[in-house]
Amino acid sequence: MFDYTATYTDQYQITMSQVYFHKGLKDETAIFDYFFRSNPFKGGYAIFAGLEDFLKSVEKFCFNEKDLDYLQSQGMDQQFLGYLENFRFRGKIYASIEGDLVFPNRPIISVEAPIIEAQLLETLLLNILNYQTLIATKASRMRLSAGSGKLLDFGLRRAPGAGGYSAARAAVVGGFNATSNVRAGRDYDIPISGTMAHSFVQRYDDEISSFRDFAEVRPHDCVLLVDTYNTLKSGVPNAIKVGKEMEKRGEKLKGIRLDSGDLGWLARKSRKMLDDAGLNYVKIAASNQLDEYVIKSLLDQGAPIDLFGVGTSLVTGRPDAALDGVYKLSYANHEPRLKLSENIKKINLPGKKQVYRLLNEDESFYGGEVVTMADETDFDIMIHPTEPDKSLELGAFKKVPLLEKVMENGKRLTEPRELTEIGDYSQKQLLKLPLEFKRFEYPHIYKIGLSKKLKTKRDQLVEMHKSKLK
Amino acid sequence: MFDYTATYTDQYQITMSQVYFHKGLKDETAIFDYFFRSNPFKGGYAIFAGLEDFLKSVEKFCFNEKDLDYLQSQGMDQQFLGYLENFRFRGKIYASIEGDLVFPNRPIISVEAPIIEAQLLETLLLNILNYQTLIATKASRMRLSAGSGKLLDFGLRRAPGAGGYSAARAAVVGGFNATSNVRAGRDYDIPISGTMAHSFVQRYDDEISSFRDFAEVRPHDCVLLVDTYNTLKSGVPNAIKVGKEMEKRGEKLKGIRLDSGDLGWLARKSRKMLDDAGLNYVKIAASNQLDEYVIKSLLDQGAPIDLFGVGTSLVTGRPDAALDGVYKLSYANHEPRLKLSENIKKINLPGKKQVYRLLNEDESFYGGEVVTMADETDFDIMIHPTEPDKSLELGAFKKVPLLEKVMENGKRLTEPRELTEIGDYSQKQLLKLPLEFKRFEYPHIYKIGLSKKLKTKRDQLVEMHKSKLK
Repeated sequence: MFDYTATYTDQYQITMSQVYFHKGLKDETAIFDYFFRSNPFKGGYAIFAGLEDFLKSVEKFCFNEKDLDYLQSQGMDQQFLGYLENFRFRGKIYASIEGDLVFPNRPIISVEAPIIEAQLLETLLLNILNYQTLIATKASRMRLSAGSGKLLDFGLRRAPGAGGYSAARAAVVGGFNATSNVRAGRDYDIPISGTMAHSFVQRYDDEISSFRDFAEVRPHDCVLLVDTYNTLKSGVPNAIKVGKEMEKRGEKLKGIRLDSGDLGWLARKSRKMLDDAGLNYVKIAASNQLDEYVIKSLLDQGAPIDLFGVGTSLVTGRPDAALDGVYKLSYANHEPRLKLSENIKKINLPGKKQVYRLLNEDESFYGGEVVTMADETDFDIMIHPTEPDKSLELGAFKKVPLLEKVMENGKRLTEPRELTEIGDYSQKQLLKLPLEFKRFEYPHIYKIGLSKKLKTKRDQLVEMHKSKLK
Repeated sequence: MFDYTATYTDQYQITMSQVYFHKGLKDETAIFDYFFRSNPFKGGYAIFAGLEDFLKSVEKFCFNEKDLDYLQSQGMDQQFLGYLENFRFRGKIYASIEGDLVFPNRPIISVEAPIIEAQLLETLLLNILNYQTLIATKASRMRLSAGSGKLLDFGLRRAPGAGGYSAARAAVVGGFNATSNVRAGRDYDIPISGTMAHSFVQRYDDEISSFRDFAEVRPHDCVLLVDTYNTLKSGVPNAIKVGKEMEKRGEKLKGIRLDSGDLGWLARKSRKMLDDAGLNYVKIAASNQLDEYVIKSLLDQGAPIDLFGVGTSLVTGRPDAALDGVYKLSYANHEPRLKLSENIKKINLPGKKQVYRLLNEDESFYGGEVVTMADETDFDIMIHPTEPDKSLELGAFKKVPLLEKVMENGKRLTEPRELTEIGDYSQKQLLKLPLEFKRFEYPHIYKIGLSKKLKTKRDQLVEMHKSKLK
């Protein structure tokens, strides 16, 4: 992982903290909420990812000597530098479960801490969670398309710098099976995958010699890239020859990989050639500009592809580029807080809150959640946040609280979770979400409502601020 | 920087290397070229960025104990692991100057080394250079739009994870002036920028108290965020009050920042209010969903904005997401190499090469470059790579070689360059490029031609491969 120190932040977090410090406000409790405003990819849900990385980083988050020297060189005063020298996050964090489905405009994380501590976490939190949630969501869409096909992350070369490292992790949260990224494999215990590139085939005077050398050295893991010269005239016939040679040695060719041309057509033709040669156990992998739509289209056409290698569209989260996650102050100076906006949808929810998911009797998702004040227990209706005429009686539903306290006094309360466990959990949750929320085109809108008490509090604060402006 | 070890790579680089190792090919010389196929953002050029980071990483690139243990656990054999234990890059690197303009389909870097060493660098090279070149190019487009306005990177929170760190650097290569990213400021010596967020204003019961506290603690660097409640009714009047109070103390309000609403209109109104109050020295900063088009539009409307804070569109390189840079084998097994493709534009240029830029008599850019064999000195014509009827006589031009040997035996031959020097160089080069290549809409196409000798070699190899397929 990147060595996150507490300068991994925006400068204004430090200048604001300096003011709080000198104004004697450093120990005042504040609450900030992390949420996003719209689902990525015009989809019906997002997959929450990055929490483990974030919590791990929080526990180590401090200013080292190099940081302090630098801030001194930037004119920070000695007294404040003395504070920063001992800075540690000592607050509480409430969070959704990593891998769970999350939806717009409801808290995913709430940080409750002395105001400087909560403020100094902002950029780290947004940087880690916005990107990983975007990528996990993209990955989960490909998972929906790929059915039982394996999904492999091939993105490091086109990844946004070191972002590619966490993309490999987030992909697994969303349902990917393996990565080409050896370092991510090493650190996150993700299965790694990869055999040969075109350059390997090109190094030889003829394709079959390259295949033979590879099969000889790596007989247990031999996937031959068949499109360097001509897939059907050269690559597949040579792969078949080598596959038969391997059989004679008691070995098995694992697969072939298609990386250009019409993948659907080539896969079908290649499958037939392999099967006709008695190599029906040889898998077909495909790569080249894949995304959830291309994968779906290929499988809809019946293309016999067993593994999909995905690069650019996975690690860049194309076409969205970023999740619009924000971190908003909801409590400070002993009061719930709110930011006005001319757009009522952008007004945040004040105070300390909880979120409850509505389940049907059979534990499947109804398709809605209610945001309440944290101390509420008795709420029987939820109200649309911006259209007060719309409401829903909650009597029939099971209500499951979603924000769990995962950190107290800056220490984790829960055991770190394995990445595979997170990925499995995510798939299980996704199964419980009705299909209409998972389709790519105009998905059903998951309802996020407010409890009466929360809505009343928010409306009061809006009125108060507006009256001040008159 | 991320601690790049040699597992920061795709698994297939390691499996191919294992085969080369066991086949006794590890010391065979190979050449790989780095180039991209189309300019990002439908623009007329790209800005080459990331070279210093790449070279620094290459010098340290090795497998540490954790890497070796991991590869062993993945079934790599002892003999090969013994080789990896002592692996270092000991080859040569030829490169364009960082910050220079680069164009599609001509080598930007050539790596000449024992084949395993050249192969194992691929993913690191592509990962660092593709992203930084994309971001530097995006930044340079905003630089073209912003005129004398200052450009600030505010992107870390929406950045692709740790990619945001190198984005701050690449932005400076492309012409940005500062970053909010403290860590990047610390490590790359970039000026840092940032004062307050909405949460700071919200923490107080009234806006003016927040402004006063800030001005008191940071009088030398006070930029007030004026849109928390209402920009013109509350934010700007309160900023003016505080600005006048500062004047009485012999201090100067540095600026205000607009972060929502119609930035052009609000900037004009705010400017007038500030000027009418005698605060004509107070700068106006603007942020919120800016990119090269919005900045241009704002300034075309005469918006009096002095500083632009750019986040998402900078660090994600939206809408492009990735540069399509590739690393292709052009020499191995004692011969120039080539990969066939049904698309002639995708066939690479074989052998060891040099690139010459064509300059007019006055040293301005003509708008073209010629790719030659490395040992050619006598070439007087360049030929279109795919349309052989098109050619250009080169007699009238000054020809400047662009690939410089920057590494030999794995050691740098040149002194590391300062980031500001690279940024300045880039701006100077951009000035020499005629305007028609810099416009955003349908820019003029910069010509990349081949020398006769290179074209002949390529055509021969194509014929040879095709005849083998018959």
